Amino acid sequence: MKVFWLYAHPESRSLNGALKDEGIRTLEAAGHEVRVSDLYAMKWNPVVDADDYGHDRTERLDVARASQEAYETGRLAPDVVAEQEKIDWADAVIVQFPLWWYGMPAILKGWFDRVFVKGFGYGVQGADGRTLRYGEGRLAGKRAMVVLTAGAFEPSLGPRGINGSLESVLYPLQHGTFWYTGMSVLPPLLVPAANRVSPEQYAEAAARLRDRLDTLATTPPLAYRTQNGGDYDEDLVLLPHLAPDRTDLAIHRRS
Amino acid sequence: MKVFWLYAHPESRSLNGALKDEGIRTLEAAGHEVRVSDLYAMKWNPVVDADDYGHDRTERLDVARASQEAYETGRLAPDVVAEQEKIDWADAVIVQFPLWWYGMPAILKGWFDRVFVKGFGYGVQGADGRTLRYGEGRLAGKRAMVVLTAGAFEPSLGPRGINGSLESVLYPLQHGTFWYTGMSVLPPLLVPAANRVSPEQYAEAAARLRDRLDTLATTPPLAYRTQNGGDYDEDLVLLPHLAPDRTDLAIHRRS
Repeated sequence: MKVFWLYAHPESRSLNGALKDEGIRTLEAAGHEVRVSDLYAMKWNPVVDADDYGHDRTERLDVARASQEAYETGRLAPDVVAEQEKIDWADAVIVQFPLWWYGMPAILKGWFDRVFVKGFGYGVQGADGRTLRYGEGRLAGKRAMVVLTAGAFEPSLGPRGINGSLESVLYPLQHGTFWYTGMSVLPPLLVPAANRVSPEQYAEAAARLRDRLDTLATTPPLAYRTQNGGDYDEDLVLLPHLAPDRTDLAIHRRS
Repeated sequence: MKVFWLYAHPESRSLNGALKDEGIRTLEAAGHEVRVSDLYAMKWNPVVDADDYGHDRTERLDVARASQEAYETGRLAPDVVAEQEKIDWADAVIVQFPLWWYGMPAILKGWFDRVFVKGFGYGVQGADGRTLRYGEGRLAGKRAMVVLTAGAFEPSLGPRGINGSLESVLYPLQHGTFWYTGMSVLPPLLVPAANRVSPEQYAEAAARLRDRLDTLATTPPLAYRTQNGGDYDEDLVLLPHLAPDRTDLAIHRRS
């Protein structure tokens, strides 16, 4: 497989840095091709701006329109185009980060803000004019997996944990971004209590990571419902007979 | 009241820009003091880095430890200190942004990453050595309110909407950040279908905003449960008899 490893951590001599190196070694030893975007090392600019689109600043900026025009006419900023090419090249994408304030570090959030422009990540039309999203889109057929560390202990990120379940914390990325663009989403790999990892705990986390990478092509993805599979009404609200009376986010999976 | 308006949008001639101006006018006309951080206009740097802490790059960076030391010894980057002072000054904080990929624009996410350092936003100890968070903390007594625009139509951000409920989309910010640091959280103000707002719809949104600002001091906050109120077990999991069998995020509110 061709695997794109998207990584955001400010310190290479960290738990995250060690897991990234372990993961890349594992993939290469198994014969996979790997490309890496180490956003801190690249000094990635995460801020969406008129310059991304060669936009005349005297004119009002409509981000969606300007990004689509720049994408379709080949005028997107070169650093954005380079990242789109890595996604297009890949069969699978690993996104690795430490959880900061229950989200991605800004440098990584801004990777999606800048790279997934209209026409590439959203606003993609099918031959019949329908908007392709949530299981359909330019990136359908690819696999995505989140690898993350968190300071919190695991129960507090469980179904009734105070921090919200890991499924809910990752829903904007896994469902609202990967699945939105058509990618299949594998269950995430969480390393909890990441500030207090002993050598034995590191060895266990590394083994879990190797196992997940060994099965990257075969692990069943999360069974998110498709937009057009008959499970949602025309307002994109889940039909009442499916997971009746529930409002947790797992209702958007078939199992 | 003293109101701090934290704002992130790349174009001042936008729906967001108009709503921000309307909001500030409304507050000032009512006699409130207002300070504004317009992150794009300030060219805010959203990337956490060793430089924030005057950290020696030859030494391994532990973000939590380095940020706490820099905070306690007055060596934090001046732009970070200036934002902390605005928060400390304020009685209420308005955070306004367009929803991008079901989260904050990176420039705003990185405001929290950089400003809410250990000792200021987390890792705050009470006199008895207990960690203060979720309803307790340095920022207790302040009010926070989110004002956001979204491309999506409102039902798709409802309780069973495909995009996840607005409550779940905002949980990392409203509960995991504001409430975590001790702030009281007012219900958010959403302007949906923001790409297609008619003059009449704009007038209606502006009226809703003015109304919310007129009642900023009196609107009842979301009734989030406190960490130490007896609702969670020692692993910070909600006790089984409270909202039994449910796993949606509203279980973390008392009503």
